[in-house]
Amino acid sequence: MAYQRLTAQHVDDLTGIVGSAYASQASEILHAYGHDYTEDYQFEPEIVLIPANADELAKVMAYCYQQELPITPRGGGTGLSGGALPAVGGVVLSTERLNRILSIDEANFQVTVEPAVINQELRDAVNEYGLTYPPDPASKGSSYIGGNLAENAGGPRAVKYGVTSDYVLNLEVVLPDGSKFWTGANTLKNATGYNLSQLIVGSEGTLAVITKAVLKLVTQPKHSLSLLAAFDNQRNATKAVNGILKSGIVPSALEFMERDAIDWVMNLMDLRVPVQDQVAAHLLIEVDGQHWESLQEEVESVYEVLEEYGSSEIYYADNDQDKQKLWHLRSNVAEAVHANSIYKEEDTVVPRASLPELLEGVKEIGERYGFKSVCYGHAGDGNMHVNIIKGDMPQYRWDHELKDGIREIFELCTKLGGTLSGEHGIGYVQREYMDVRFDAAHLQLMRKIKNAFDPKGLLNPKKVLPDRD
Amino acid sequence: MAYQRLTAQHVDDLTGIVGSAYASQASEILHAYGHDYTEDYQFEPEIVLIPANADELAKVMAYCYQQELPITPRGGGTGLSGGALPAVGGVVLSTERLNRILSIDEANFQVTVEPAVINQELRDAVNEYGLTYPPDPASKGSSYIGGNLAENAGGPRAVKYGVTSDYVLNLEVVLPDGSKFWTGANTLKNATGYNLSQLIVGSEGTLAVITKAVLKLVTQPKHSLSLLAAFDNQRNATKAVNGILKSGIVPSALEFMERDAIDWVMNLMDLRVPVQDQVAAHLLIEVDGQHWESLQEEVESVYEVLEEYGSSEIYYADNDQDKQKLWHLRSNVAEAVHANSIYKEEDTVVPRASLPELLEGVKEIGERYGFKSVCYGHAGDGNMHVNIIKGDMPQYRWDHELKDGIREIFELCTKLGGTLSGEHGIGYVQREYMDVRFDAAHLQLMRKIKNAFDPKGLLNPKKVLPDRD
Repeated sequence: MAYQRLTAQHVDDLTGIVGSAYASQASEILHAYGHDYTEDYQFEPEIVLIPANADELAKVMAYCYQQELPITPRGGGTGLSGGALPAVGGVVLSTERLNRILSIDEANFQVTVEPAVINQELRDAVNEYGLTYPPDPASKGSSYIGGNLAENAGGPRAVKYGVTSDYVLNLEVVLPDGSKFWTGANTLKNATGYNLSQLIVGSEGTLAVITKAVLKLVTQPKHSLSLLAAFDNQRNATKAVNGILKSGIVPSALEFMERDAIDWVMNLMDLRVPVQDQVAAHLLIEVDGQHWESLQEEVESVYEVLEEYGSSEIYYADNDQDKQKLWHLRSNVAEAVHANSIYKEEDTVVPRASLPELLEGVKEIGERYGFKSVCYGHAGDGNMHVNIIKGDMPQYRWDHELKDGIREIFELCTKLGGTLSGEHGIGYVQREYMDVRFDAAHLQLMRKIKNAFDPKGLLNPKKVLPDRD
Repeated sequence: MAYQRLTAQHVDDLTGIVGSAYASQASEILHAYGHDYTEDYQFEPEIVLIPANADELAKVMAYCYQQELPITPRGGGTGLSGGALPAVGGVVLSTERLNRILSIDEANFQVTVEPAVINQELRDAVNEYGLTYPPDPASKGSSYIGGNLAENAGGPRAVKYGVTSDYVLNLEVVLPDGSKFWTGANTLKNATGYNLSQLIVGSEGTLAVITKAVLKLVTQPKHSLSLLAAFDNQRNATKAVNGILKSGIVPSALEFMERDAIDWVMNLMDLRVPVQDQVAAHLLIEVDGQHWESLQEEVESVYEVLEEYGSSEIYYADNDQDKQKLWHLRSNVAEAVHANSIYKEEDTVVPRASLPELLEGVKEIGERYGFKSVCYGHAGDGNMHVNIIKGDMPQYRWDHELKDGIREIFELCTKLGGTLSGEHGIGYVQREYMDVRFDAAHLQLMRKIKNAFDPKGLLNPKKVLPDRD
């Protein structure tokens, strides 16, 4: 499909909607809005528009719909699958000025936000009421709630608290033609018509643009405790994950890091925990709750399970400083990996009991294709980030052969009951693998749904669905 | 839209697919499959088909699609919004022979079932592994999981554990044209393409027929305690609901019953608890968990809140016999109401802090339209069943004026941030009120989604979406 380029008249009209201070064609602006956190992709939009509010945003969309101009909606730009990349040029529509927390409903445990509220700001604001918004992707310090919704972001606490979609009650959305409505209701239960809220969550900005969200909150747990457990082999570590959950405990985090991950992050961050030579992997485990005594009981049970699965050393963190240290190690793994080499990150997910097979399969595929990988992630959810390291892999193999290896990884995930992405989305970079998971009839139905929302195919082109042959 | 009637050739062909023992046009069969639990509606299908498995079911659907014959899929027939009523005749497609629990995956806390597994049978089967499937609609002894999924069923435990949709990982579905695929993956997280699983849950059999479901399980709580608290006025009872939740406790049930409800059920069931004359309402509260001591602490906190909100008497149940007695009272309210009078049941839902306004508004509307109502339900979710009692309301007003009163109730719900149905669905009986909640652009989008799945409009006609003018 060929997309129309913007004319001078288009630029004038669009600038008229948002005001000249918030429409830009300056090359440094086009460059800045031409990439996100996904590897080293860079595109050039034709104009960047930053509307003041939902009504201006709807006017931009209605105009582009009428004039058939492609739009790439953009949140904090921290995505890892390229959802915010303006892959066909056109308009980048940034939500950044829609950044208010509109109300905190203390009685109903709800918050109403605009899409450009930063995840951590939301968390801080509701914490003052003794409430929390659990989903905490690694990007929480800079990612927008709108982007979290678009990608159905997860994070370490998902093992106990669920992902973004579990906290969505109601969304105000603007369709490609500029019409605007609320998808749901501000209620915990809803059996009224098709669930458009959940259809739009995770649709990566291809169906509609979210302009307000009503999100569910929960009571902030009073206490938490963290453990870092070392294992001499990876299989035992991944098997201990299931052991912990089978013991009846639901930890608030259950994270896996293989050896390279912790070494690289310790080098990058100048943070240290003692790690013996033979250690092959760590689990980082957190429990939280309202009752200190039950938490202590839970930690004792976790200790027993860890020992049963052969953990060689366990660090225990019950004060804020120690807990923060352990979490800093974990949350900077991605940055450490990215600082270390050119890489590609796959967001694999399987039923958690299949993690040992996944991990071993990834290494075996890597041996055949000549790549190393660093694996870490949300083991309690079966969601393992596989960072494929270029290292000294020849450029030709990296450019031309690696994709067959990635395809094999996704085929393995699918065989194990899993799928292509747990929390990063498909975006621009994983579209070509969608046929691994979905047959033709299934993909065709997704296209029809896309078409129901966006009959002209203008909203976030070249995302999620593969190009047609 | 006019639907085609079945010819003798159609009957022969369809009988050939399922076998003559499982295709019937006998009048008593057509009658039995012509109603569900919704008021006194009765329709006549032209044939009832009971396929042996998903492949036969898909063949029936492909044939009907090709021949343009309407299909009404049917589960346990316990729905309260008429979702299983064959409103235009045609084929009733019963899933009753797809009734196997296919696997219980103890390691991943998952179960794979066919749609005609009865809710309680599933619960019993997984309990043997120390696991539970929390959603427990009042119909749990006879409703099918397929119907629970189609209607997004709730139940008393939703306040802590969520509704049916919260337990859906993956669905095998058959589209109207007979194509069959799995919608998701067997994983706790999934950010891979559009969320068709959640779109199909709650779509009331209008988009696809579910032939298998992979459901999430949780660890069975070891202990529970129940309380029945009496209040001399309804406002205090509904305000105490919020008081309990604000104290940081998440009860596993938080149910409201107004006075008539408990009186009628005590008459029907020959079950008694002492209820003083001035009592206007009860709350039934359950807490559950793994730790007996923390549960005791929680019950003490609940007591304090109940006293603060003026509860006049609290019954405490810590043994199975007493707990069962309290739950029998609650779970038979619907039957007691239905035995007492001709009725209409509205499944209202609002943000829970607005329950006092909802309850007072319903009574005020009732006074103006001349109807009494009995209100009870899942107060912790803001989900209140409003049973409108015909009593001695003149037939003319019941037939012609009541619908304006119901419309006013739904307008009130919407004004309070709520919607038309919390857990019963829209089905056949609430379609005419959909415009109260959804504007034209929104309804039009739902029609387009329906059309993406079912372009010939053959699957479960006259459900969910209102007729076009």
